[in-house]
Amino acid sequence: MRFYSDNTATACPEILAAISEANQGLAVAYGDDPWTQRLDAVLGGFFGAEVRAFAVATGTAANSLGLATLCPPYGAIYAHQEAHIATDECGAPGFFSGGAQLALLRGEHGKLLPGTFAAALSARPVDVHSVQPAALSLTQATELGTVYQPAEIAALSKLAHGRGLKVHLDGARFANALAFLDCQPADLTWRAGVDVLSFGATKNGALAAEAVVFFDRDLVRDFELRRKRAGHLLSKSRYVAAQLLAYVESGVWKRNAERTNRLAQDIGRAAGASLLHPVEANEVFVKLGVQRRQALRAAGFEFYDWGAESAGDARFVVSWDQPDGDVPALCAALGRLR
Amino acid sequence: MRFYSDNTATACPEILAAISEANQGLAVAYGDDPWTQRLDAVLGGFFGAEVRAFAVATGTAANSLGLATLCPPYGAIYAHQEAHIATDECGAPGFFSGGAQLALLRGEHGKLLPGTFAAALSARPVDVHSVQPAALSLTQATELGTVYQPAEIAALSKLAHGRGLKVHLDGARFANALAFLDCQPADLTWRAGVDVLSFGATKNGALAAEAVVFFDRDLVRDFELRRKRAGHLLSKSRYVAAQLLAYVESGVWKRNAERTNRLAQDIGRAAGASLLHPVEANEVFVKLGVQRRQALRAAGFEFYDWGAESAGDARFVVSWDQPDGDVPALCAALGRLR
Amino acid sequence: MRFYSDNTATACPEILAAISEANQGLAVAYGDDPWTQRLDAVLGGFFGAEVRAFAVATGTAANSLGLATLCPPYGAIYAHQEAHIATDECGAPGFFSGGAQLALLRGEHGKLLPGTFAAALSARPVDVHSVQPAALSLTQATELGTVYQPAEIAALSKLAHGRGLKVHLDGARFANALAFLDCQPADLTWRAGVDVLSFGATKNGALAAEAVVFFDRDLVRDFELRRKRAGHLLSKSRYVAAQLLAYVESGVWKRNAERTNRLAQDIGRAAGASLLHPVEANEVFVKLGVQRRQALRAAGFEFYDWGAESAGDARFVVSWDQPDGDVPALCAALGRLR
Amino acid sequence: MRFYSDNTATACPEILAAISEANQGLAVAYGDDPWTQRLDAVLGGFFGAEVRAFAVATGTAANSLGLATLCPPYGAIYAHQEAHIATDECGAPGFFSGGAQLALLRGEHGKLLPGTFAAALSARPVDVHSVQPAALSLTQATELGTVYQPAEIAALSKLAHGRGLKVHLDGARFANALAFLDCQPADLTWRAGVDVLSFGATKNGALAAEAVVFFDRDLVRDFELRRKRAGHLLSKSRYVAAQLLAYVESGVWKRNAERTNRLAQDIGRAAGASLLHPVEANEVFVKLGVQRRQALRAAGFEFYDWGAESAGDARFVVSWDQPDGDVPALCAALGRLR
Repeated sequence: MRFYSDNTATACPEILAAISEANQGLAVAYGDDPWTQRLDAVLGGFFGAEVRAFAVATGTAANSLGLATLCPPYGAIYAHQEAHIATDECGAPGFFSGGAQLALLRGEHGKLLPGTFAAALSARPVDVHSVQPAALSLTQATELGTVYQPAEIAALSKLAHGRGLKVHLDGARFANALAFLDCQPADLTWRAGVDVLSFGATKNGALAAEAVVFFDRDLVRDFELRRKRAGHLLSKSRYVAAQLLAYVESGVWKRNAERTNRLAQDIGRAAGASLLHPVEANEVFVKLGVQRRQALRAAGFEFYDWGAESAGDARFVVSWDQPDGDVPALCAALGRLR
Repeated sequence: MRFYSDNTATACPEILAAISEANQGLAVAYGDDPWTQRLDAVLGGFFGAEVRAFAVATGTAANSLGLATLCPPYGAIYAHQEAHIATDECGAPGFFSGGAQLALLRGEHGKLLPGTFAAALSARPVDVHSVQPAALSLTQATELGTVYQPAEIAALSKLAHGRGLKVHLDGARFANALAFLDCQPADLTWRAGVDVLSFGATKNGALAAEAVVFFDRDLVRDFELRRKRAGHLLSKSRYVAAQLLAYVESGVWKRNAERTNRLAQDIGRAAGASLLHPVEANEVFVKLGVQRRQALRAAGFEFYDWGAESAGDARFVVSWDQPDGDVPALCAALGRLR
Repeated sequence: MRFYSDNTATACPEILAAISEANQGLAVAYGDDPWTQRLDAVLGGFFGAEVRAFAVATGTAANSLGLATLCPPYGAIYAHQEAHIATDECGAPGFFSGGAQLALLRGEHGKLLPGTFAAALSARPVDVHSVQPAALSLTQATELGTVYQPAEIAALSKLAHGRGLKVHLDGARFANALAFLDCQPADLTWRAGVDVLSFGATKNGALAAEAVVFFDRDLVRDFELRRKRAGHLLSKSRYVAAQLLAYVESGVWKRNAERTNRLAQDIGRAAGASLLHPVEANEVFVKLGVQRRQALRAAGFEFYDWGAESAGDARFVVSWDQPDGDVPALCAALGRLR
Repeated sequence: MRFYSDNTATACPEILAAISEANQGLAVAYGDDPWTQRLDAVLGGFFGAEVRAFAVATGTAANSLGLATLCPPYGAIYAHQEAHIATDECGAPGFFSGGAQLALLRGEHGKLLPGTFAAALSARPVDVHSVQPAALSLTQATELGTVYQPAEIAALSKLAHGRGLKVHLDGARFANALAFLDCQPADLTWRAGVDVLSFGATKNGALAAEAVVFFDRDLVRDFELRRKRAGHLLSKSRYVAAQLLAYVESGVWKRNAERTNRLAQDIGRAAGASLLHPVEANEVFVKLGVQRRQALRAAGFEFYDWGAESAGDARFVVSWDQPDGDVPALCAALGRLR
């Protein structure tokens, strides 16, 4: 039973159907096709705002292309020290931006607090010797499976904007956050001060599709050129656009996220006091200890160790197509280990 | 009738079927799935050599990641001045390599001659002040629809290797070249001295899939890290791998390339004396003049102008799924314009 | 007798004296010293315009930092194919800009013609696939010892500005051009459309000092940050500023340039019909043939071969402190070889 | 009375004399002069090892060029969070390396502890998703005026080498550390596992001169090309080489460092319990409080605030040419404020 990652999932039927439907006739390449051209309107509708939206195939591309547009090569990007851009993208923000420096901050359960961010901004003078604070990157849901409230994002964005920084939101699991909060997409994005969103679909049922959504539309020409030179403008753009359209229009984003969130809650309850972080999305972190972790693995459960080997922590991620019996089995096993 | 580009094509049935077949069960992400893990063996079989093969979604990514692995940031990449990497990738080689400089050479019909390359290598001394010759990038089929003979590639590669340069082959339309020459894949690659190949499938029937094939396997760890940080390691890697496997194993690469080559020949014959370059793949370049070009467009043919506006040249590209009537209609129209 | 380069020269007495005079008391570092703070006014006076001027220690830094400020990472920099930035800076423009691509053009005697530049700008459409034309870089005096007339620069700048490009002037030997033309510094710079000048002093008598002079003052904050992160903001800035102030205020720029120009004219006359380019600055290029070149070397003259080994061309550069007997001796030797 | 920085100092007489002595006759440029060519031998003698040594004009250049040679673009550089490369070089390591990421660690008094470093190396698995640990950069003397013992460096280097990382030492104030410890230069460098040293002279009496000293000589060709393309190969190289030769051969490094260390000790004693860090070099950090800091400034003392404005901390740096009365006056003033 596989709890490695939601990237182990298949593509869901709605997405595959959309790809097949798009597979008709010659269509102008590189985004001048009818599917891609609907992206702005459909995502604008979803977010309740005028947006410019661009399709790419990976979350790393979405994050780093967005950040490179917000941040000069001598800029600093503030983020939580557990952020995906800091730990799991092999230095992509530095690559795409031409050398921008990450300013990594601490925060319980993967979330930044305004006080920490404010202190970091004031820690030393900004002059020609220092990197220039340029962007704040938040993750929603966070890497530790927690979720920011709209007001929390708004408070952080306000601080950022007050100092001239732009705000990026890594929404690889945006749907999970949205389903958890049951609020409007706008509440978590432009209304809360987000300038650019990486809106993930891949983990939650798409084949390979992420949208970079600009609420600040002045920046997009730079983005378009950066995307092309990074090899992230797909020639047959219709297929990635079609996935995003189906993801939003069919409501599959919600159905899948609600299921994985609910199953993660089940695992969290089974973990009981071993739970490391509140379960608010589809990830569960459990302090098992090295021995119990090994026992669980021997019992047929696949998952990743989390953090240092010796800490004995484990991460379980629920996929949209997680077989029905997997989570009850895991819960039972966790129960036996308590 | 659309002759803009082979990127306007759909994905062919074999490719879509492969994607559907791969859409079963949870599979480890980021390349540790059974599809991706077959790539080396299947492409090794195709090329008759031990290879390491990596899947990416775009040709620009394939070319520039390959080149960045071959070329230090202070290196020079020799290429034809009409090469895709020079004209159509928005500076991607400079981006991926960290600033490598293109050394662009002339050559009739899009092909480099050994004499031109040798002269460029000897044009000035190589010392600490100059960029360091690092790679030769050839295109097969070329951007002007012509094809290098195996011996021509071998002669250029020999020169390159003799001066310590590595050889990259941009094979966005490799299948077309192979179908035209009716030789072995090995003859156009490692036997002719190619170190790294961008093996394109997208233009010839895939949805979004290109393989970077390393015949020089010492380089691959660097490549893997560059691919990840560039956002070109797909999380659900199985889908792009499945496309490449189907492309090679089903023989669809050949069927599609033979059809588009044949139809291009028809257009070339219809163009007669207006033909700008020999037709050896699926692209046809015709000197129409501004007026006749406009007339053709008014008659319902879609295609790109080529080069300077005033030159009046046109490019026609045949897609694998070009409707049956399109080419006869174009041929008739070209005949009327003569 | 050494004719390798004007970089073989010493620093002239006025420059050394200025360094000694600046060597008094504790002065705030990194440019907030009285010497650096006079740069804008003194260079503004020299050029007859309000300018922002920045000191760096090398010409490569001056050129590439200036260009990186003018050109996005996906930009194209148009320049003569013999330009120093293309041939002698080890890819610096690509490094500093984050990957900008050089678009190299031909032109007799090292000079670009407006027609060639215009044709290059129109050679193909500019869209998301191509690098974005961003800057024109001219060299004055050119790498082949020739000099642009003010009207020639103005014509090229007008074309550049008309297409939205900025204009950079590599003035490593600006003093030689100015002395040759006997015009105002303004005539060769802002009045002719130059946005940023690399104003060289090192070759013409300084120890290590070049000014980057911005006539377009909107760009300077970006420049200042790029300079710092490239390690080109000197901590004891007063010493490089003092050199530039002395270079301009003492008139040594003129005295030295007039002497080296005059001596180069003597060599040019002695070369007679073997002369490859008009002598308009302090460099002389002579077609000697491999054998005569060797003979000259055996006779004790030191100089660089130029271009391909087999061409037999030689370059002679006169330094500001070239010993009095050197040039007559070279002229006599060249006369004997005719 | 100026205690801003040792960069406010002049150049000392021995250095200026060396520049004047080098100012004789035409010398081959770009390092092929007799002064530059003695660098390896003279610095090799100083360090008691075979070395390759390269002159540059700034510490930022020395650090970042050295690090870029040690670290691939997808590498991680471990350093103290107060390191100059992290806080005062405007992102230079990211720029020169093509995007390497800093992994910043905590440690009392500006020093890293082996345990902290070991924990960071083990904090998460290294795979294709993470930046690749590549280099450890230590600072000696540290940014907080403290000094590593040889055994402390050796312990950190051993950890680094055991994990395949190279070791860089930022020795902008290396002379101060050496004078404090009264040990051999070898003890702080190659004997303790240092691969590359930035050996600063500017702060301690030179005009603008730092040596990058490679104890691991395999890396130097890459370094030389990086230096050139970064504009840090000085054309009139003799002047920077002459400074370094004089700095080492005259013993001025020692005389100056001993004086500034001794005066800093005086200030440290005067600060008493307000002292923030042990005084082991020429920098003194004092917790004054905002009000007393203002009083001191009003009394004519110039110095920098340290850290956040509100913390009320101050940094005093003694320059080699600090006027004799300055330190007694500062000590008296600090005494009055206690």
